[in-house]
Amino acid sequence: MIILDGKKISSQIKEEIYSSVEKIKISGGKQPHLAAVIVGSDGASETYVAHKVKACEQVGFKSTVVRVNENADQKVLLEKIDEINDNNDIDGLIVQLPLPGHISEDTVIERIKVEKDVDGFHPINVGRLLIGQPGYVSATPYGIIELIKHYEIETSGKHCVILGRSNIVGKPMAVLMSRKGYPGDSTVTLCHSRTKNLEDWCRQADILIVAMGKAEFVTAGMVKEGAVVIDVGITRAPSEKTRSGWKLLGDVKYDEVAPKTSYITPVPGGVGPMTIVSLLNNTLKAAKKEIY
Amino acid sequence: MIILDGKKISSQIKEEIYSSVEKIKISGGKQPHLAAVIVGSDGASETYVAHKVKACEQVGFKSTVVRVNENADQKVLLEKIDEINDNNDIDGLIVQLPLPGHISEDTVIERIKVEKDVDGFHPINVGRLLIGQPGYVSATPYGIIELIKHYEIETSGKHCVILGRSNIVGKPMAVLMSRKGYPGDSTVTLCHSRTKNLEDWCRQADILIVAMGKAEFVTAGMVKEGAVVIDVGITRAPSEKTRSGWKLLGDVKYDEVAPKTSYITPVPGGVGPMTIVSLLNNTLKAAKKEIY
Repeated sequence: MIILDGKKISSQIKEEIYSSVEKIKISGGKQPHLAAVIVGSDGASETYVAHKVKACEQVGFKSTVVRVNENADQKVLLEKIDEINDNNDIDGLIVQLPLPGHISEDTVIERIKVEKDVDGFHPINVGRLLIGQPGYVSATPYGIIELIKHYEIETSGKHCVILGRSNIVGKPMAVLMSRKGYPGDSTVTLCHSRTKNLEDWCRQADILIVAMGKAEFVTAGMVKEGAVVIDVGITRAPSEKTRSGWKLLGDVKYDEVAPKTSYITPVPGGVGPMTIVSLLNNTLKAAKKEIY
Repeated sequence: MIILDGKKISSQIKEEIYSSVEKIKISGGKQPHLAAVIVGSDGASETYVAHKVKACEQVGFKSTVVRVNENADQKVLLEKIDEINDNNDIDGLIVQLPLPGHISEDTVIERIKVEKDVDGFHPINVGRLLIGQPGYVSATPYGIIELIKHYEIETSGKHCVILGRSNIVGKPMAVLMSRKGYPGDSTVTLCHSRTKNLEDWCRQADILIVAMGKAEFVTAGMVKEGAVVIDVGITRAPSEKTRSGWKLLGDVKYDEVAPKTSYITPVPGGVGPMTIVSLLNNTLKAAKKEIY
């Protein structure tokens, strides 16, 4: 059993990005620049954005945080986005989700210039993903694909079972794993809340990708000997064993499942760290104008 | 066994569209108007566009065919598209594919105003499909969904196996059958050229959608008793039995498979007629500004 060490791989990728930025600077180019928009002052959103800002610093990117009042009109937010869209110094633009109820996330996301949509949430980027054209792939699926590549996990002809049909993980992963080429060429079954005999599906998987948000849902009896297990779940659970009083749980019962697998992601330290690094990768691509 | 009679259903839908157009006219509204662009003089393209023009006439739409010389520069084609984009009388715009090799289909499709993209090929419409937002669904998948709805075929929790991962059939069908709601909520397995044990997958299907382009590939032994079989294939084969000297074959060996199924589409007269009607449906939606 090999642990898919997202922490290690993401550090390596950060170093590679840092080197790329150094090269850009040496050749007189502009420092890559990511702008993050926060609406309101949600604690979790603040934490996520702080992590992204820190990651930018680590790889030598410039970052800007733009704050919009929680009660601000949607129009105000859209104007801010237009401003950033028009600012030639900024390469990537993300709007931290969720947004307050009076604002339409769809409208906001479609307003982001597709060339700067490094979260890969704009329908054009999503559409290009489905039809196999170059575009920004959203961070979590991108991170999973990078992990698979780094460990050279075989995917062609494998049966990949995905649990969860969310827009940000399940659906794009189904697209990526079934597309032509590597990683891809898997036979993909997309499972969800209406799927019958979910446990049987899990047991059939050569590659099992779990993104349900149900702590420790997948048990040893649901996994085939030698399977690859990728756990996208993160649930905060109370714990008496940690000083903080809580711990992070994945969707997979790691201790009992891990021994049966060929490869498995831990939680934390698996998919999580890969996600933020993928945002950096997209921002670098935007700065280099690799896609648009 | 019930035959999914695309010919009959498409006629009914055409009558409904005709009534809608009459209502629009009576209330003083503008006649829906579809423009089709043909580049060069490919025989098959001419035939397809002629069918679409005829269908427009049947339902009371106005139609315009715009011809561009085969050797014309891509720029010329893009200018034509811009013209039609800007023409307020035209609701829907399709460019007949394939295009000559010196023209980028992707560039041409992205140039079509998304509001007029009634073929549903623009990445924004494809992306909206994947994330479950309203948009134009391309004609063949849309037609299949309409057939399923008309016959009230149960899809929730069913195992839907799709053979073929094309951009115009396999991938969008996988998205539609796995999405929330009806028709949808199926557990979808997307199979393709790299899939192992393809016959086993077929035998597991409650709903089998075949879009491979391999004449009579699916035989009776590959289909579960009581399955729903939807055949998207059309291959022209020589025949001594017909006056024309050829006949149309589907991807399914109809005569031997049909008796085992609960529902099956014939070829011709199944999915085919539904496709053109879906283009009309999209054009009506464009005229009514239902989506954008």
